[in-house]
Amino acid sequence: DAELLLFESFTGGLVAPESDDNLWNYKFTWNPRNVVLAGQGGTAKFIQEGTYKYIPYHKLFRRTEILHVNGSGKFEAYPNRDSLKYREVYGLQNILTLYRGTIRHIGFSRAWNMFVQLGMTDDSYVMEGTENMSYRDFTNSFLAYNPHDSVELKLRSYLKIDQDDIIWEKLLELDIFNPNKKVGLKNATPAQILQKILMDSWTLKKDDKDMIVMQHKFGYTYQGEKRQIESSMVVIGEDQTYTAMAKTVGLPVGIATLKILNGEIKTPGVQLPITKEVYEPILKELEENGIKFKEIKVPYLGYNPNNVNG
Amino acid sequence: DAELLLFESFTGGLVAPESDDNLWNYKFTWNPRNVVLAGQGGTAKFIQEGTYKYIPYHKLFRRTEILHVNGSGKFEAYPNRDSLKYREVYGLQNILTLYRGTIRHIGFSRAWNMFVQLGMTDDSYVMEGTENMSYRDFTNSFLAYNPHDSVELKLRSYLKIDQDDIIWEKLLELDIFNPNKKVGLKNATPAQILQKILMDSWTLKKDDKDMIVMQHKFGYTYQGEKRQIESSMVVIGEDQTYTAMAKTVGLPVGIATLKILNGEIKTPGVQLPITKEVYEPILKELEENGIKFKEIKVPYLGYNPNNVNG
Repeated sequence: DAELLLFESFTGGLVAPESDDNLWNYKFTWNPRNVVLAGQGGTAKFIQEGTYKYIPYHKLFRRTEILHVNGSGKFEAYPNRDSLKYREVYGLQNILTLYRGTIRHIGFSRAWNMFVQLGMTDDSYVMEGTENMSYRDFTNSFLAYNPHDSVELKLRSYLKIDQDDIIWEKLLELDIFNPNKKVGLKNATPAQILQKILMDSWTLKKDDKDMIVMQHKFGYTYQGEKRQIESSMVVIGEDQTYTAMAKTVGLPVGIATLKILNGEIKTPGVQLPITKEVYEPILKELEENGIKFKEIKVPYLGYNPNNVNG
Repeated sequence: DAELLLFESFTGGLVAPESDDNLWNYKFTWNPRNVVLAGQGGTAKFIQEGTYKYIPYHKLFRRTEILHVNGSGKFEAYPNRDSLKYREVYGLQNILTLYRGTIRHIGFSRAWNMFVQLGMTDDSYVMEGTENMSYRDFTNSFLAYNPHDSVELKLRSYLKIDQDDIIWEKLLELDIFNPNKKVGLKNATPAQILQKILMDSWTLKKDDKDMIVMQHKFGYTYQGEKRQIESSMVVIGEDQTYTAMAKTVGLPVGIATLKILNGEIKTPGVQLPITKEVYEPILKELEENGIKFKEIKVPYLGYNPNNVNG
């Protein structure tokens, strides 16, 4: 008799190592607007070892945890909005740990947090005079007025960025202090302007490859013994068009559609893909397309982000 | 010929010095719920020396400025939500500096920011199991899970509170680490629970006196010369019932009502009290009730929070 104690699920759309040529180790492989707004619209909620946890948006990107993905090294993940609602979906009402997160290369979230802290990801209001606003003006809008001090020093001081901190170089790379580059958007929100600035730097080039990383952790008791499995998947895209994102999102739907048309999936109505009839044949066919999960058994540690025993 | 260059307006409902007996130098003299939710529902917007400035909620309480109120010492103020909409109301479309703020005793906002950072002021979702939750459980809900570390140390580490920082004593005073005190509210939001915790400590006692502090700064050119006036008001209440808050809010309305009934205010319809017909006789009668503004002339510095010249 088995019982699930822990389910942690992480996914990230990233840039593949061979195309990773900026300090953020990130490029857009998904709707850029969704990336800018990620984490907004509700406090992150999850349960860890039976304790409910809540993280407000402005702390989300400093509450990342480190993941070891077998064969691909370490990544970080920040919690998704509401993990609790998946208890119902997956039939895990009494599970002790349920946590869903988004994967990034290590260091991304701490740097992204600068935009959150400044207020640059806010999509709830329109700024004044955005069409003729420079990137530097945009940045200065979130800093205290001072007749003498530079925008650079005001930002460093406000966000307490040390002289030797790489996150400063990440800001410079995006050119956010440039007084000559114009925003050129009418009646824009901070989030829309930030998106524009990021798209200057983070757009996939023609031959860039993206990368999808997934990891699921399952902790459970089986015949009185506690066990844990880690299931991981890494898919590298081909180029700007045939992305890993397009494959991993599109192929399951395409395969399912064919199986419905061919009468192999018979359950009528709109269904979540959580029944064996649906996911078993789809996962099998995905494997034939290079989308394959690797499972390894690891010692059961429960929810234990630092992998510390005792 | 005169032109207004700067208008800064600050108000605070505080506790009077003679009744000020907690580390926060604050007691509720207004709807406690509004105090807990203060600053939410929109980014703070204002204009300083012609530059638009925007402060997100999670930074509001670290962007306070120091006010010198003639005869009453120094206070701090954090910006109110949208100062810009008052340009229209006051007919100040071209003013260079327009800033409205809320006054607190110095140190309040930096400590209040702890609740904001933790997520305790959030009113947008209901927490799980709030009825039987202890104050300690509530605090722990916003901190990372750990099987060994204390709630105290987790909070100190998360918010980077130094060993010798008085804000720690402010938390202890509110008893937020108490494992035995129960929240006792069904389906409560974090903000509702925080309000309950604060009301244990911050409710006016029978003979406590409150205090209203207002300060308005007017910078202007007159006959080619730049000038500045500071107009301040401090009113001390009598006790828990006859508060300065009740007087300063209630008397103007009472006086206006009488003047309308007696035919002294003649303009029909719903009016903002910004015409001389309305405010001149009311201000005069308020003075007879001890609500009096003191005006002093100060050197014109423009918007200059540190009072630094050159």
